[in-house]
Amino acid sequence: MTGNNSDAPAPHAVANNGSAYGRPPQHSNKRLTEVGPGMPMGELMRRYWQPIAVSTDLGDLPKKVQILGEELVLFRDRHGRPGLLYPRCMHRGTTLYYGKVEDRGIRCCYHGWLFDVEGNCLEQPCEPNGEWYPERCRQPWYPVEELYGFVFAYLGPPEKKPVLPRYDNLEDIGSDQILVSMIGGLGATGDLSLDVVPNSWLQMNDNVMDPFHVHVLHSTLTGPQFAAEFAIMPKVDFFQTDEGVCYSAVRELEDGQTVDRISSWLMPNIMSVPDIGLRAGYSSGVAWVVPVDDSHYVQAFAMKMPKDAPPLRITLGGKSWGDMTEEEHQRTPGDFEAQYGQGPISLHSEEHLATSDRGVIMQRKLLMQHMDIVAKGGDPMGVNFDPDKATVHIRSGNFFKKSAAAE
Amino acid sequence: MTGNNSDAPAPHAVANNGSAYGRPPQHSNKRLTEVGPGMPMGELMRRYWQPIAVSTDLGDLPKKVQILGEELVLFRDRHGRPGLLYPRCMHRGTTLYYGKVEDRGIRCCYHGWLFDVEGNCLEQPCEPNGEWYPERCRQPWYPVEELYGFVFAYLGPPEKKPVLPRYDNLEDIGSDQILVSMIGGLGATGDLSLDVVPNSWLQMNDNVMDPFHVHVLHSTLTGPQFAAEFAIMPKVDFFQTDEGVCYSAVRELEDGQTVDRISSWLMPNIMSVPDIGLRAGYSSGVAWVVPVDDSHYVQAFAMKMPKDAPPLRITLGGKSWGDMTEEEHQRTPGDFEAQYGQGPISLHSEEHLATSDRGVIMQRKLLMQHMDIVAKGGDPMGVNFDPDKATVHIRSGNFFKKSAAAE
Amino acid sequence: MTGNNSDAPAPHAVANNGSAYGRPPQHSNKRLTEVGPGMPMGELMRRYWQPIAVSTDLGDLPKKVQILGEELVLFRDRHGRPGLLYPRCMHRGTTLYYGKVEDRGIRCCYHGWLFDVEGNCLEQPCEPNGEWYPERCRQPWYPVEELYGFVFAYLGPPEKKPVLPRYDNLEDIGSDQILVSMIGGLGATGDLSLDVVPNSWLQMNDNVMDPFHVHVLHSTLTGPQFAAEFAIMPKVDFFQTDEGVCYSAVRELEDGQTVDRISSWLMPNIMSVPDIGLRAGYSSGVAWVVPVDDSHYVQAFAMKMPKDAPPLRITLGGKSWGDMTEEEHQRTPGDFEAQYGQGPISLHSEEHLATSDRGVIMQRKLLMQHMDIVAKGGDPMGVNFDPDKATVHIRSGNFFKKSAAAE
Repeated sequence: MTGNNSDAPAPHAVANNGSAYGRPPQHSNKRLTEVGPGMPMGELMRRYWQPIAVSTDLGDLPKKVQILGEELVLFRDRHGRPGLLYPRCMHRGTTLYYGKVEDRGIRCCYHGWLFDVEGNCLEQPCEPNGEWYPERCRQPWYPVEELYGFVFAYLGPPEKKPVLPRYDNLEDIGSDQILVSMIGGLGATGDLSLDVVPNSWLQMNDNVMDPFHVHVLHSTLTGPQFAAEFAIMPKVDFFQTDEGVCYSAVRELEDGQTVDRISSWLMPNIMSVPDIGLRAGYSSGVAWVVPVDDSHYVQAFAMKMPKDAPPLRITLGGKSWGDMTEEEHQRTPGDFEAQYGQGPISLHSEEHLATSDRGVIMQRKLLMQHMDIVAKGGDPMGVNFDPDKATVHIRSGNFFKKSAAAE
Repeated sequence: MTGNNSDAPAPHAVANNGSAYGRPPQHSNKRLTEVGPGMPMGELMRRYWQPIAVSTDLGDLPKKVQILGEELVLFRDRHGRPGLLYPRCMHRGTTLYYGKVEDRGIRCCYHGWLFDVEGNCLEQPCEPNGEWYPERCRQPWYPVEELYGFVFAYLGPPEKKPVLPRYDNLEDIGSDQILVSMIGGLGATGDLSLDVVPNSWLQMNDNVMDPFHVHVLHSTLTGPQFAAEFAIMPKVDFFQTDEGVCYSAVRELEDGQTVDRISSWLMPNIMSVPDIGLRAGYSSGVAWVVPVDDSHYVQAFAMKMPKDAPPLRITLGGKSWGDMTEEEHQRTPGDFEAQYGQGPISLHSEEHLATSDRGVIMQRKLLMQHMDIVAKGGDPMGVNFDPDKATVHIRSGNFFKKSAAAE
Repeated sequence: MTGNNSDAPAPHAVANNGSAYGRPPQHSNKRLTEVGPGMPMGELMRRYWQPIAVSTDLGDLPKKVQILGEELVLFRDRHGRPGLLYPRCMHRGTTLYYGKVEDRGIRCCYHGWLFDVEGNCLEQPCEPNGEWYPERCRQPWYPVEELYGFVFAYLGPPEKKPVLPRYDNLEDIGSDQILVSMIGGLGATGDLSLDVVPNSWLQMNDNVMDPFHVHVLHSTLTGPQFAAEFAIMPKVDFFQTDEGVCYSAVRELEDGQTVDRISSWLMPNIMSVPDIGLRAGYSSGVAWVVPVDDSHYVQAFAMKMPKDAPPLRITLGGKSWGDMTEEEHQRTPGDFEAQYGQGPISLHSEEHLATSDRGVIMQRKLLMQHMDIVAKGGDPMGVNFDPDKATVHIRSGNFFKKSAAAE
């Protein structure tokens, strides 16, 4: 910790002998948590491309997608083009989830209206001559693109659609590597037992620029969950970048080396965490904390891995999360327990952010600033319209050197 | 389709490249869907007798009944009389569902108050001399009658109670026939796997005067679910009757015959659908779409069948609905998927009713008109107070003839 | 029943032929049922100690406690002291349910803040020098004490904390006896199949001063559930005491004896019911009807039992409650069916309390009076601040004598 200069206010003096009696009502910070259409955070999120599905999961059947409080239907026409449509058929409201995928689009099961991947209505078979104002019949749709094994969607205003970003650490895949892409609850639980995590995206987001929980939750509380070296209290600094916030956590190791662990958070919900086994070098992946609605999220991971690596799956005490009993969850809490333990949506008004929460404070300030920028019609941090500048440099990694003391 | 003269307005021009971004909030038509006490549709529905149970299901135990947003208790006293009571005992509110059925009525389990089938309080055993204002203690009740294997109830104002209708096609049961009476989700699923269908009654009602979904959903979309001839696009006409709306769907068959399929909807929630195998002659049954509440309904069917007919059960791809996987429901949607796929209560404000929806439009207009009539104290369509005019003629059927072209 | 002098008003005359049509909306008595912070009943309840856990159930893991609409965490530090804390860590809101119990208190899993049983913050390991305004960091807490095998909590204003009461019938435990202490749904079901009863505490409370349901529900309705003598209609009197209300139910037995069954209710939710097998002598136990929230409660029982007694478990027709089918619950209703059958929270506005409900009326009046006293800053009935007067005399019991007639 470089100094004591936190932005956190000191707590109030303790009243009433500290009794829990008579506490005033508390509330969540709706500005930071509500992601539906028209909400400030919802509008900020809608200015960025979001991963919505793993490309290989999209076969010849339509798929339900829930994101940012919206329900949508994703399909791939028989020419291979993905399409993301408002699910309720514009005719009489039947969901296109039960539609039939065809060469040119998706056909509603009820009366057969056929829509292409951009919502254009191609056929209305029960109407005279097979059409009824076809130029006026358009199923609401969102643009999608495929990259890094994901289908990405842009849910914002059409005239503000940015270039889909690329990340330099996902571009240099070695011949002995594969890119693994997953969407689900893995980041919270360490295994695949949850498809959706039942709490606010912000609780995961708060976890990213928080190197101290790595020291306590994942290390000293119940023994090492990740690298043993996390038990060493690091010297931490936070700094703002062009895309968001980074921290540097420097540890003096027993062998005389120091390791500088740099972790990145990119606006508004992207992170790149260095290897949790403290393997040297740049981070091999990027992850998105994608809100399903105000109180549910998924994580999307894209990560370079050796071709022969075993499946991602963290175990605690020899058991994976989904196999643990309630008592074992209490005895060996991890990220899920710490974050879901804040409630479906935490009560931010009763938080006491201290000096160690400086990263969280920086993130939230940036989010608040850029919600204001979006409200005023501006473009938020990290959004880019120039295809030549699509690639973002990821700084994250575990960087070792001989310590000054050791030299 | 006889011409293009639909009442449906043309859709608005497409704004904003058709993007799903920025859609205004949508809503259901509460006037057409809300069935609770005091709601316009609730009051219209309460002017008609509704089937609430299969008579033979009512043994020596009380039965819960949920209809039109009300919870009630149905029982049959030991003299055989059915009674339908408000469930909360007027004394201290314990449900009569746990009451004891006796010769003269039902006895509340808690303090033993005994009520007859019309709610009169016959005993109060814990009161001095066994009574406490008995003439003022009356459990709220509704009248019931039994017909066609059902217990029918009338939930409307007592002074407006009509004659219980009869239907001519249920009166002429042949010696080789039986009348089968069922209540449940059969009409939506084709099997008995749902006791209650979890969406608005109106979504089933909209399905009745809609011959075009028969052509798409049940025929051309995934192959024939009913008769193969439904793949032929019919020439359709709709006409209003004294009881509601009918359609005539005329198909030119390959053998030179034409078949005129006439289907009937009777106010406010009654239908008679001709044989779905296209067997010639009048329809053999009548069905009621009975709202449980705003977002649930049951169907009651009374149908003449051959004595040796197998149980009613529709299969799709060799499987009944309840045995199908989620993927199979997607690949072979039927009435349940089309209607439940509109949501628990559809968002009617975003519908685009086209020329093929003329029957739906006619039904809804009649419902709207007669809600107004009820609100003004009048008697709605089809309600009858003359026992001599109790029998309604059912026009529905599949009627074959040699086509003019073939002659 | 001593006379007809009930406080109950006569019911209104029956309108509209008694039809259930057009009933006005009904409501629960929120003043009597709502137990959350700040609600009149919630504040009354908070002036009394309430049992929250069985002491031996509190091992080395934190335990969730839900009471009076609040969620709390109970733990026992390694020195054996129980502590009851507001569950959301004051730092960033993670529940202490996933905290680690240590010698001096409980440590939050996320960033390691350590709190003692009175909420004092002892360590903040990620802060510079391990502390950040520790004198201002206090986790909200409530005082607890252990007695009769329970952990009791006081959730009221600190300056109003009374002495924890003792009961004379729980003090004289014989050498052949043990004190059995349980919390759960036993009082409603007769067995342990429910941890929490899903209806308002008031519905159980109303059951206490109601000797008449013993005669009907537990005796004449479906045969004896308790002592056979309960089939005899008793002569009942109610009288107010310094702590609440008692009834005396006198029965003339066949053998020429009379038995006076005295049962007690103590403000605001305490009872002592005499032996239900009609064994002679004072009641051997005390029970609390503890609200979990407005529509759920638990019962806490402390009861002297012979050392070799079998576990408490009532059977009806040879089956315990949890093993009964729905049909058996209908055919053999007990306290659960009668009380849960009033709904999650009964609709008190439609009750018709009669002469046999005089005890219920007396209880509710006392509760209303003492809610007013608390609102005005006074101390409600039975609350005591003098440790020398901690012990309450329990009058309840089955008392036999030769009847006058027999002499």
